[in-house]
Amino acid sequence: MEQAAAAIHDFNGTGLSILEIGHRTKHFQAVLDEAIASVRSLMQLGDEHEVLFLHGGATTQFMQVPMNLLDEQGIAAYHVNGVWGKKAAKEAALFGKVAVVSDSESNGNTAIDKAFEIPGEASYLHITSNNTVEGTQWHQFPDVAAPVVADMSSDIFSRPIDFRRFGLIYAGAQKNMGAAGVNLVVVRKDLLDRVSRKIPAIMDYRQHIAAGSLMNTPPVFPVYVSMLTLRWILAEGGLTVMEQRNREKAELLYQTIDSLPIFKTLVKKEDRSWMNAVFFLNDPALEASFLERCAKEGMVGVKGYRTVGGIRVSMYNALPLSSVEAICSLMRDFAAKNG
Amino acid sequence: MEQAAAAIHDFNGTGLSILEIGHRTKHFQAVLDEAIASVRSLMQLGDEHEVLFLHGGATTQFMQVPMNLLDEQGIAAYHVNGVWGKKAAKEAALFGKVAVVSDSESNGNTAIDKAFEIPGEASYLHITSNNTVEGTQWHQFPDVAAPVVADMSSDIFSRPIDFRRFGLIYAGAQKNMGAAGVNLVVVRKDLLDRVSRKIPAIMDYRQHIAAGSLMNTPPVFPVYVSMLTLRWILAEGGLTVMEQRNREKAELLYQTIDSLPIFKTLVKKEDRSWMNAVFFLNDPALEASFLERCAKEGMVGVKGYRTVGGIRVSMYNALPLSSVEAICSLMRDFAAKNG
Repeated sequence: MEQAAAAIHDFNGTGLSILEIGHRTKHFQAVLDEAIASVRSLMQLGDEHEVLFLHGGATTQFMQVPMNLLDEQGIAAYHVNGVWGKKAAKEAALFGKVAVVSDSESNGNTAIDKAFEIPGEASYLHITSNNTVEGTQWHQFPDVAAPVVADMSSDIFSRPIDFRRFGLIYAGAQKNMGAAGVNLVVVRKDLLDRVSRKIPAIMDYRQHIAAGSLMNTPPVFPVYVSMLTLRWILAEGGLTVMEQRNREKAELLYQTIDSLPIFKTLVKKEDRSWMNAVFFLNDPALEASFLERCAKEGMVGVKGYRTVGGIRVSMYNALPLSSVEAICSLMRDFAAKNG
Repeated sequence: MEQAAAAIHDFNGTGLSILEIGHRTKHFQAVLDEAIASVRSLMQLGDEHEVLFLHGGATTQFMQVPMNLLDEQGIAAYHVNGVWGKKAAKEAALFGKVAVVSDSESNGNTAIDKAFEIPGEASYLHITSNNTVEGTQWHQFPDVAAPVVADMSSDIFSRPIDFRRFGLIYAGAQKNMGAAGVNLVVVRKDLLDRVSRKIPAIMDYRQHIAAGSLMNTPPVFPVYVSMLTLRWILAEGGLTVMEQRNREKAELLYQTIDSLPIFKTLVKKEDRSWMNAVFFLNDPALEASFLERCAKEGMVGVKGYRTVGGIRVSMYNALPLSSVEAICSLMRDFAAKNG
């Protein structure tokens, strides 16, 4: 935060603000180069994958992915575990055939179905690696013949993964990787050039690759914040350290929920999200006073998503263990007074 | 700049950074509301126009405009005065028929053709109000039956215009309205719903209108910087004051060019841009030493665009008269020494 604020006054001693520096200067090129190199290093990518920083958020990728990878006569498999996957599948249907190979809505999106089959001719399988609204997360990725496309917006860089196994990974930056307004896209080059439609320049991964993410003026400041965040992750020890911290936070919170009978979570144990814990008070009448107590102690944003209700505690990379300890202590105290 | 930097530490006393605040909080809603109200006030818009802040830059609008306004069987008129208009026309051709009603490439893009005709059935006429690369600008807008769509990325809010006459106005924010990563789109509502294609959610103006520019996570920080810039324009006295300052800067620079025989500009007098003055040294051999002299005095970014060459001095709203005075004084001195 301090470095981002300082760069608004004077970016790297140029005398210019990061808000006014030209995106075709060597100064911004160095930012972009470092951001891309950091992604490559954290993901241990080889030459088969390209790294892009593009305008927009995941909702942009909901359309951009099928526009680039799904031919009009082709079929794409969508594994739907909640609101984001559902939206992604809806957009894909504008470009080709969509096979929803699993939809956990019928069981309230409380578990991730691993017993699904995809059509042999599927151009790709799309999954959402972490479901912010429902509190579920893929902890083992599916082993299928088709290229896997993953929306990792809400758990990117939270743990080591064999990223090279993926056909395409996309992530809006605002959860674990910086500020809103930029997308990370990692794509296996051999998946491109397989559709016959003409793709508008700004939506065409191939043109962005050719232009080195500088086809047009990129979202300069959000890219800069991503670069700083990636630098921080590397300096902290990389994804192994992130995983260790995230595991510790999640284990503490779920142990607290499980140990206090006034709370409950409906999510299947093996599919619980380390990023977003969604849980409820057994007596819904206590919810308002619990939220009031949180607010009084300065814990904001813990109300569950409107379609799900209950409580949601998000534990992205930047959240320290002490914050989780604080809410767990509050939960124990609240349980003692209302148990 | 100071306010933007301060908001990274603590946004409006919330204790949270503008980089972490939720976009569905009342705090960010107030930012968006003020930004939209400021645009409405500066443009004196009525109910027939909607104001949107969307991800991306003008290159995104090159495709988004025809996707929303041009049916596959329809025709759109494009008035091309340089690189940006040419790119816009190219993208439109992916969505319907394009009639290039004027293209000034043959005369080197040094004048804006006003004697053109557009097909009676055109869905719209697209123009680029200011050409950053070529240094031309529309000073009187065309009076045609078709709705006029204007790319105002590089001269938005530089002068009072009868904005209500336009069907659609778009502008990437980074020149006169803030930081890269956000687009302003002002659209006449009755032009929507005229195409039969299905439009992806993130590209559909109607869905953005329904969601109040909050369909997905917007580029929060760039929107905030736009709001601050709009607030500044209003506080300075609005577009009349901007026009007065921009006229003064442009007149001084062009007078200096015209009065010194070692410089020349090829742009027709009535079409000269107030935002970007493109000019040359009569003796090209002097160009390098002129640029060197500029660099020595801390004037960066004055080299002409690679396809045009020569010198380009940009004078966006934020540039003070004193900066133009400084380069004019340098030009006079350089002329005296090399004349």
